[in-house]
Amino acid sequence: MEKSRVLIIGVTGNLGHHLAKATLQFSHPAFALVRPSSFSDPHKAHKLHSLSNAGVTLLQGSLEDEESLMAAVKQVDVVICAVSSKQVLLQKLLVQVIKKSGCIKRFIPSEFGLDPDKTRISDMDYNFYKQKSEIRRFVEAHGIPYTYISCNFYMSYLLPQLVQPGLKVPPRDKVTIFGDGNTKGVFVKESDVAEFTIRTLDDPQTLNKVLYLRPPGNVCSMNELVELWESKIGKKLEKIFVSEQELLKKIKETPYPDNMEMIFIYSAFVKGDQTYFDIESSGGLDGTNLYPEQNFTTISEYLDTLL
Amino acid sequence: MEKSRVLIIGVTGNLGHHLAKATLQFSHPAFALVRPSSFSDPHKAHKLHSLSNAGVTLLQGSLEDEESLMAAVKQVDVVICAVSSKQVLLQKLLVQVIKKSGCIKRFIPSEFGLDPDKTRISDMDYNFYKQKSEIRRFVEAHGIPYTYISCNFYMSYLLPQLVQPGLKVPPRDKVTIFGDGNTKGVFVKESDVAEFTIRTLDDPQTLNKVLYLRPPGNVCSMNELVELWESKIGKKLEKIFVSEQELLKKIKETPYPDNMEMIFIYSAFVKGDQTYFDIESSGGLDGTNLYPEQNFTTISEYLDTLL
Repeated sequence: MEKSRVLIIGVTGNLGHHLAKATLQFSHPAFALVRPSSFSDPHKAHKLHSLSNAGVTLLQGSLEDEESLMAAVKQVDVVICAVSSKQVLLQKLLVQVIKKSGCIKRFIPSEFGLDPDKTRISDMDYNFYKQKSEIRRFVEAHGIPYTYISCNFYMSYLLPQLVQPGLKVPPRDKVTIFGDGNTKGVFVKESDVAEFTIRTLDDPQTLNKVLYLRPPGNVCSMNELVELWESKIGKKLEKIFVSEQELLKKIKETPYPDNMEMIFIYSAFVKGDQTYFDIESSGGLDGTNLYPEQNFTTISEYLDTLL
Repeated sequence: MEKSRVLIIGVTGNLGHHLAKATLQFSHPAFALVRPSSFSDPHKAHKLHSLSNAGVTLLQGSLEDEESLMAAVKQVDVVICAVSSKQVLLQKLLVQVIKKSGCIKRFIPSEFGLDPDKTRISDMDYNFYKQKSEIRRFVEAHGIPYTYISCNFYMSYLLPQLVQPGLKVPPRDKVTIFGDGNTKGVFVKESDVAEFTIRTLDDPQTLNKVLYLRPPGNVCSMNELVELWESKIGKKLEKIFVSEQELLKKIKETPYPDNMEMIFIYSAFVKGDQTYFDIESSGGLDGTNLYPEQNFTTISEYLDTLL
């Protein structure tokens, strides 16, 4: 069977870059839609140059330019979008183009986080998840074959600072724990998310499904996370417990967007939005054991890199 | 196999009354939780008297009284809630009681309309659907076995007036059509919804599933509906087309709650919220053909009763 040709939108971003590399790794013909302006940004131009050298075909265009979208979509079988949260609603034109093209066997919209239909913080997240839900409904309304990837947190987000807002490295004296510290969150490494995503593309099991990642070594509560870190540095930390009420108060007092980090912490580690529901019984598919050859870097292995 | 014992909350309401009757019809031991105040309302007292005579065990209590809820829940295997939209969030205590009791094999929360996770009018519906989604997340967070019934519109809602806001009977001269009139909606008779719901209770296929009803004879667009009515009265009607923009303007100009009828019309017959998505591919279960012996009164049959 021939490998699907894959178009990735957002390759200059964090996950998009990993997706492009994973596409090549699994021998799919790889295409990237790139805004002309990206070539004038030295950092982005460097990334693009290295992807192009590795074999990714770069196509100029943008989510706001229908002609360029159609030209790109017509060259492939699968489209993966990995644009930033600010660009989520711009995917509507892409969905319409995919529909019109009639040639796309799978579309993966830009999510790669919590399931936007399952989070319970819609009063406070400035429509962060609502827009992603809106795109799901738009995809479904157009009858486009999809896979939604709910991988929860990336490891490069919040984990390097042990879920401490404002810090950049893990604490070695005091640590703040939100709520009772027993609610479990999930961190998955971006490169693992990218590889996993590419594995799903030609897999009929994953057609029109929400795929969740909760590998056992990647799920832990704040209490467990602190204990793990303490065991690695050989020292006990002073724990400061911040109650749900206090955290909500701080979120309200902090202006947007500075409060988003605390809002995501609240969602995952107080409300439990990443783990409160049973995957199968809510109609989802557990991706964790779908591909036995897929490795997931554990939280413990990641913490070792911070020592 | 013994039939599950069923507790119904909301039996003095439209669907709740049908649910109680269907419970008896299928030989389930039937219980109803009734607020003490309902016995002083002559209309409700009459309904309760007739249900009691038919074999429903009436239990006094309310969604706001934990002790009465626990006493009622402990006597049954299944709980069906059919309270009004204003009381949706009051189901949280019930969910907690069900969790604590540990004895409930199936919970059907108060929905019986559009799928609240699939509607696309959250900016304008005054949280009508958001509260129902919130209860879903609450049920899932508590790990309670559920079935969600998405039956779309009841036949007694909007259909008696041929989807004409403000009218009480179908028009015989002029008719207003919203949007292009080609978007399809769904009407199912309350007694059929009730029978269908009772059939799902002991069925393992329906555990933790969203069940959708779209019987072919119950799905139609406004153009088709008008044509059907015209053929029955043997007369063509003058059509007045109201565009999406004009409808949205009217909705804005009309104060809440008088505008809700137009909002529901907008959702179903302009946006297509009842039919835009494929049931299977979005993880749902199509209930239409699940029980071959289940009859669904068609729209045409219903219109015949209005002649």
